[in-house]
Amino acid sequence: MNNRNFLVINGPNLNRLGKREPGIYGAQTMEDLQTELVLFSKELLLDLSFEQSNNEGDLIDLIHGAENKFRGIVLNAGAYTHYSYAIRDAIASVDVPVIEVHLSNVHAREEFRQKSVIAPVTIGQISGFGFDSYKLALQVFHNQLKGDTL
Amino acid sequence: MNNRNFLVINGPNLNRLGKREPGIYGAQTMEDLQTELVLFSKELLLDLSFEQSNNEGDLIDLIHGAENKFRGIVLNAGAYTHYSYAIRDAIASVDVPVIEVHLSNVHAREEFRQKSVIAPVTIGQISGFGFDSYKLALQVFHNQLKGDTL
Amino acid sequence: MNNRNFLVINGPNLNRLGKREPGIYGAQTMEDLQTELVLFSKELLLDLSFEQSNNEGDLIDLIHGAENKFRGIVLNAGAYTHYSYAIRDAIASVDVPVIEVHLSNVHAREEFRQKSVIAPVTIGQISGFGFDSYKLALQVFHNQLKGDTL
Amino acid sequence: MNNRNFLVINGPNLNRLGKREPGIYGAQTMEDLQTELVLFSKELLLDLSFEQSNNEGDLIDLIHGAENKFRGIVLNAGAYTHYSYAIRDAIASVDVPVIEVHLSNVHAREEFRQKSVIAPVTIGQISGFGFDSYKLALQVFHNQLKGDTL
Amino acid sequence: MNNRNFLVINGPNLNRLGKREPGIYGAQTMEDLQTELVLFSKELLLDLSFEQSNNEGDLIDLIHGAENKFRGIVLNAGAYTHYSYAIRDAIASVDVPVIEVHLSNVHAREEFRQKSVIAPVTIGQISGFGFDSYKLALQVFHNQLKGDTL
Amino acid sequence: MNNRNFLVINGPNLNRLGKREPGIYGAQTMEDLQTELVLFSKELLLDLSFEQSNNEGDLIDLIHGAENKFRGIVLNAGAYTHYSYAIRDAIASVDVPVIEVHLSNVHAREEFRQKSVIAPVTIGQISGFGFDSYKLALQVFHNQLKGDTL
Amino acid sequence: MNNRNFLVINGPNLNRLGKREPGIYGAQTMEDLQTELVLFSKELLLDLSFEQSNNEGDLIDLIHGAENKFRGIVLNAGAYTHYSYAIRDAIASVDVPVIEVHLSNVHAREEFRQKSVIAPVTIGQISGFGFDSYKLALQVFHNQLKGDTL
Amino acid sequence: MNNRNFLVINGPNLNRLGKREPGIYGAQTMEDLQTELVLFSKELLLDLSFEQSNNEGDLIDLIHGAENKFRGIVLNAGAYTHYSYAIRDAIASVDVPVIEVHLSNVHAREEFRQKSVIAPVTIGQISGFGFDSYKLALQVFHNQLKGDTL
Amino acid sequence: MNNRNFLVINGPNLNRLGKREPGIYGAQTMEDLQTELVLFSKELLLDLSFEQSNNEGDLIDLIHGAENKFRGIVLNAGAYTHYSYAIRDAIASVDVPVIEVHLSNVHAREEFRQKSVIAPVTIGQISGFGFDSYKLALQVFHNQLKGDTL
Amino acid sequence: MNNRNFLVINGPNLNRLGKREPGIYGAQTMEDLQTELVLFSKELLLDLSFEQSNNEGDLIDLIHGAENKFRGIVLNAGAYTHYSYAIRDAIASVDVPVIEVHLSNVHAREEFRQKSVIAPVTIGQISGFGFDSYKLALQVFHNQLKGDTL
Amino acid sequence: MNNRNFLVINGPNLNRLGKREPGIYGAQTMEDLQTELVLFSKELLLDLSFEQSNNEGDLIDLIHGAENKFRGIVLNAGAYTHYSYAIRDAIASVDVPVIEVHLSNVHAREEFRQKSVIAPVTIGQISGFGFDSYKLALQVFHNQLKGDTL
Amino acid sequence: MNNRNFLVINGPNLNRLGKREPGIYGAQTMEDLQTELVLFSKELLLDLSFEQSNNEGDLIDLIHGAENKFRGIVLNAGAYTHYSYAIRDAIASVDVPVIEVHLSNVHAREEFRQKSVIAPVTIGQISGFGFDSYKLALQVFHNQLKGDTL
Repeated sequence: MNNRNFLVINGPNLNRLGKREPGIYGAQTMEDLQTELVLFSKELLLDLSFEQSNNEGDLIDLIHGAENKFRGIVLNAGAYTHYSYAIRDAIASVDVPVIEVHLSNVHAREEFRQKSVIAPVTIGQISGFGFDSYKLALQVFHNQLKGDTL
Repeated sequence: MNNRNFLVINGPNLNRLGKREPGIYGAQTMEDLQTELVLFSKELLLDLSFEQSNNEGDLIDLIHGAENKFRGIVLNAGAYTHYSYAIRDAIASVDVPVIEVHLSNVHAREEFRQKSVIAPVTIGQISGFGFDSYKLALQVFHNQLKGDTL
Repeated sequence: MNNRNFLVINGPNLNRLGKREPGIYGAQTMEDLQTELVLFSKELLLDLSFEQSNNEGDLIDLIHGAENKFRGIVLNAGAYTHYSYAIRDAIASVDVPVIEVHLSNVHAREEFRQKSVIAPVTIGQISGFGFDSYKLALQVFHNQLKGDTL
Repeated sequence: MNNRNFLVINGPNLNRLGKREPGIYGAQTMEDLQTELVLFSKELLLDLSFEQSNNEGDLIDLIHGAENKFRGIVLNAGAYTHYSYAIRDAIASVDVPVIEVHLSNVHAREEFRQKSVIAPVTIGQISGFGFDSYKLALQVFHNQLKGDTL
Repeated sequence: MNNRNFLVINGPNLNRLGKREPGIYGAQTMEDLQTELVLFSKELLLDLSFEQSNNEGDLIDLIHGAENKFRGIVLNAGAYTHYSYAIRDAIASVDVPVIEVHLSNVHAREEFRQKSVIAPVTIGQISGFGFDSYKLALQVFHNQLKGDTL
Repeated sequence: MNNRNFLVINGPNLNRLGKREPGIYGAQTMEDLQTELVLFSKELLLDLSFEQSNNEGDLIDLIHGAENKFRGIVLNAGAYTHYSYAIRDAIASVDVPVIEVHLSNVHAREEFRQKSVIAPVTIGQISGFGFDSYKLALQVFHNQLKGDTL
Repeated sequence: MNNRNFLVINGPNLNRLGKREPGIYGAQTMEDLQTELVLFSKELLLDLSFEQSNNEGDLIDLIHGAENKFRGIVLNAGAYTHYSYAIRDAIASVDVPVIEVHLSNVHAREEFRQKSVIAPVTIGQISGFGFDSYKLALQVFHNQLKGDTL
Repeated sequence: MNNRNFLVINGPNLNRLGKREPGIYGAQTMEDLQTELVLFSKELLLDLSFEQSNNEGDLIDLIHGAENKFRGIVLNAGAYTHYSYAIRDAIASVDVPVIEVHLSNVHAREEFRQKSVIAPVTIGQISGFGFDSYKLALQVFHNQLKGDTL
Repeated sequence: MNNRNFLVINGPNLNRLGKREPGIYGAQTMEDLQTELVLFSKELLLDLSFEQSNNEGDLIDLIHGAENKFRGIVLNAGAYTHYSYAIRDAIASVDVPVIEVHLSNVHAREEFRQKSVIAPVTIGQISGFGFDSYKLALQVFHNQLKGDTL
Repeated sequence: MNNRNFLVINGPNLNRLGKREPGIYGAQTMEDLQTELVLFSKELLLDLSFEQSNNEGDLIDLIHGAENKFRGIVLNAGAYTHYSYAIRDAIASVDVPVIEVHLSNVHAREEFRQKSVIAPVTIGQISGFGFDSYKLALQVFHNQLKGDTL
Repeated sequence: MNNRNFLVINGPNLNRLGKREPGIYGAQTMEDLQTELVLFSKELLLDLSFEQSNNEGDLIDLIHGAENKFRGIVLNAGAYTHYSYAIRDAIASVDVPVIEVHLSNVHAREEFRQKSVIAPVTIGQISGFGFDSYKLALQVFHNQLKGDTL
Repeated sequence: MNNRNFLVINGPNLNRLGKREPGIYGAQTMEDLQTELVLFSKELLLDLSFEQSNNEGDLIDLIHGAENKFRGIVLNAGAYTHYSYAIRDAIASVDVPVIEVHLSNVHAREEFRQKSVIAPVTIGQISGFGFDSYKLALQVFHNQLKGDTL
């Protein structure tokens, strides 16, 4: 697979970005995120696709469908992060590396947000940097393509 | 928003009302519930809409879609009440007050039913009064419209 | 028993209503509550009695004394809600239905307020609606007298 | 102290005996208990006094007051058994042996009834034998007076 | 209901069989499973239907839909087994017996896989025997039809 | 069964009585216990048999063997009290009432001694009265034979 | 080893089958079980041996003794299932595959019965199907001999 | 409020001081404590009142009654410290600062004494210094009146 | 040892006083604290030494070094209070009484700050009074020198 | 008692040494262990006896029987180490010092192997050194006989 | 502060990089890390300083010393991450933003590594990307200087 | 590495040996320990070095520094044993075997001393034998050099 295709998957309630608790998540929308990431991925010469769903089953389908199409997934699973063992199994069932990202610093919030049931099957986790969390994840994939350290 | 529109959302397995464990939930069906609530809302001069889904993602979509359309939501999230942090986040992401209702007294049943992960983002919880649980919730919204105490 | 007598019991610190943490409990006093409930009960043609005590033992005595006198109790047991197994046993020892009410949404506050040790022996719980919590409980009893659904 | 005075203290809700959950506690009343124990204590040549209170503070006062008056206390602390560290401290603060009794087998009921916070400061615990639980406790005190083994 | 119809429901990620962690789940696919079970059910003279979904809500719908159509369900709920109280309630809401099956020995894997929230409402659980787990479940239903011991 | 036969079963380490931690268990031996209980049972006109074993399996066999031979068992299961679910099941499997006894007040000792896994299937528990614990248990059985309250 | 010998081991209290809690375990005895399994194994052309003991140590000896004599063990360890790490180690110490079976659905009963400490060293667990639980286990072993999928 | 009135409240069993476990609490009585504190408060030119009750409800009443009369409360709530959320709420309901004191070092005793449910609503806690614990608390209030650091 | 030497030890981050979270710890610096305590100790005719270190090992060395030189230690171990069993052992290893102090009311803050692992080996704990916490500790030592009650 | 007799007791599954999980326990057998220890004890001029049993009750009997015959016991209680409070009581009931040994480093294995319920009544524990664990224990007893430090 | 100075702090055992568990941490050394980061920071026009210490106290000093000198800290606190509340307080005591980084994916390792006690006072956490974890943190700081989104 | 160099590292408070809680740790000093171990190591022809520090960071440095210099470390990490994951990582980061020793039987003391966070990365643990604990550890290393069993 020689392509440079990557997939950004946003989970539940991230379609509400900008409208949802701006004190925590900022005033920019998911469209702003998409615009910004497309710009950034062009700099890195990556091809980016976007998906969002509030539905656990759809997120599983998206992860399954990524195999053989994408070289990596940037996943913000929203609240599913904390209890969806089904999404965890979906990640484990495909041969595509996944990076877990969060806009806010989940480790500084409610107790239940401090445990990720999907982190053990991802290559790493980035949380707390707003849109930059996504960009950093793309940077990691880009570095891997260059043969950089990981 | 000057309308008097309210939304009743029923979650998983509530479509089985009447057929499901009648010892716990009674012999009346969801259709009976709808009929009774429509009658009651007419007395209160409220406009009532009904939704039911067994699907966590659909329930999230329904909550998102209520913004700017409804002045309040009466939500029986069924078993999702006890673990769906995604529904919790959905409620927190919209500017519509939500009242949590349960037909049975969840505090008198299995251990796992005694914890509600969504209650912290609702304005209150009513459990144990059968169909009356819903009516009481509507009464609260009606009182609010009248400028009554809350 | 053909009477329409109901008893409202307020537990510890509810005599401080209006003076106590108004951010949580509002500015109205227990006298305001009584006035408002009397008015409301007259609409429902119910006879209402009021009791308040800060004393666990007195609350138990009040519950015992309700048998054969009252057709139902609206109980706000205050902080005793969370540890008084003795009040729980008192409720179980009388043949009078009890509805548990709370002014604030206890499920949205400190961890210790999220567990009610008395709820398993009540017919239901209403929390989060200020004075309306009591009115809703009276409404339930009124509906029962009418032979309405419960 | 050469007297043969003993004190039976019954805690919360035991005044409801006979009326309270007869499936668990039997149909006989506290008066029946008193009658039966007086008869039994006469056989043993003991002088028996009786107290009952639903009030934690009163129970503490009764325990304090027993010093220098009674040679032993038979205590059924009801639900306070499971959380009243204040009664525990009261027992520890007097020089009168206490035997803890229960009508029902508390170890076979709800989880919360299986822990006694007062047992560590009593000489022993008897539970599950109805009125006999009290008689057995008196028998122990009687044996002690005879210089029997303990 | 005189039919011999049975339904096999596979939950999340089971569509990845053969591709997913073959060290744990083996190299055969869900199509192989279906082929093998059809053959086996023919021997037993059973009529078998198959469903698979990654979606919790769809699985609930499938369980609801089984009533009056199928005499039993063989359910591998995948990771939902460990947290979906909604699926548990769905099973409890229908009058169709359910047998829970797992390909791998879930009791020998991660801590979280050792608890099944749905097992309490099934008639039994079979785990650890690969495709045979399903066949054994069908054998149980077949024995029941014959009036064999259960 | 018109006999008056009762069985006293002592579990692990009780053969060491008198030699074992006399500060906790006293200086008298198991033979002393047997002598004293025989005398006491003669007063009550009961026929008493004694068994002791350090072996969990043997204790189970003894309990099984008691059916149809004994009208009650006084059981001091020693440390097995705290973890032997197998002895618990043995008691549940026979139609002979069992009273659990302990020489020391187990509720005042190490944490692990405060939980009895067998108590839920006995009719009651007596702990803390030395040899008297056994006598009290026999007294209960004697009272039952007389048709006394229990 | 070309033989077709298999061993069924029943643990504590299973000798009470038929007499023990028939509501849970049915009215048939262990002899009935043996008869039925012998018939069934003849169909499968297997040679079956039976052992039962209430003694943890004997069960360990039986497991040790099975090596080089039996090709598989069907083990119902009764209540030892939930705490006997010694039996667990015995299974791990022999080169004979073990299948864990239970008559009742242990996952639907008391909390303590939901954990098996031996399951992690068995090839799988079957619970809830009465005598069929044993037959299904034998079927698995039979399929293995045929080279069937497992 | 320009007065210099302070209130010392002693909770359950403190009336037994001197008689109660002198190894832990010393040989001096509550009267000695009162005498000593009056002397000390005269040095500081404070007006001191004393209250003691074994009754949770009375302690709540005392705290309520302190508003507008006292500038501070020194509270030794005895064993209620560890479970009386009702006293906690009483403190939170009045506009009078409270300092929590203990004669013994509660942090060096039983596990249950190491948690104070009232500390979060007091300005601080002093434990372990016998009568000095009270004097230190008065010193703090005195420093506050002088405008000293706090 | 007739001297009147006392040692104040401040642990990690207390050198940041005044700069560190002034909302919690106030605006005064450690130098202000030292100045104020020197003045106060002169009134009491005590000789005061000061040490501060962020280093767990150094704090242990300081405690060891205090033996035979100081008659008491006032210790604010900062965050080490909550997990340094090594400092606990250091205190237990010297024959110098230690009083534990905290500027803020640690019992009113995060869960982890509510447990002190060193308190069990100190003579008492004072928390919540700012600089006064230290002064009160010195007052206790001064009272002890006078032969006052403790 | 002037003898130099010591007893080595091996618990469950240690008869399987060499055959059992050689990756963990090594390839040498229990006979090899015995041979090696006899040789070693001769160097130390000790008389060594050996016992092994898989049976908890037998192990208790062996410990009881050691009194007055042996000066010390080297005990590898196998998996019973982790739950046999009965063996713990057996050790406490005899006046013979016991050293607990393990072949493997139990603290580096499964969670359940990290807790020893018998260690609190032994003089010490040695784990992780294969056969040397036993030799070290004998060395300790030998040193004690010489009057060496312990 | 107009400078572009940033500080990288490595905690315990990171000086062993390359020599330490290369399967987890890779074969490159801390010197390699420093070289690589200096190169990278030059691209970003940042001035980078490096510190490493195995000493909790020194790490606290380094964090204190960073105020007014550095605009941000990249902190890999090694194992201190999981229990050093003192380092947590150090971060909270300075006005310098901190980003927590880890070479390995700590959320996929031992239970104890999944909790960070310092994360709640950092702006975010990056784990699992080897040397890239540090680079990503620097990138975040660089973006902040540019006024980019965060 | 053909040398016979071994390193004994003593952690916090062990410099207080003889002075510290002699009831637990004995009256001999660390110098006595060193003298005794030097003598013992000469018998074994080992070269012994000694280090002691109260400082967690220094202990880590000492462990790092042992690589290529020592063939084994005898480590008594004192109270750090129970929480220093940093020392655990230090041991894992060097290619030198470590044996954990304790003077007292840590398994018989406070709850917190029963867990060792470093044991999983050592080859074994010896606790309870005073100075002999160290000697036994040296004996193990000596046996390894001889090619003895381990």
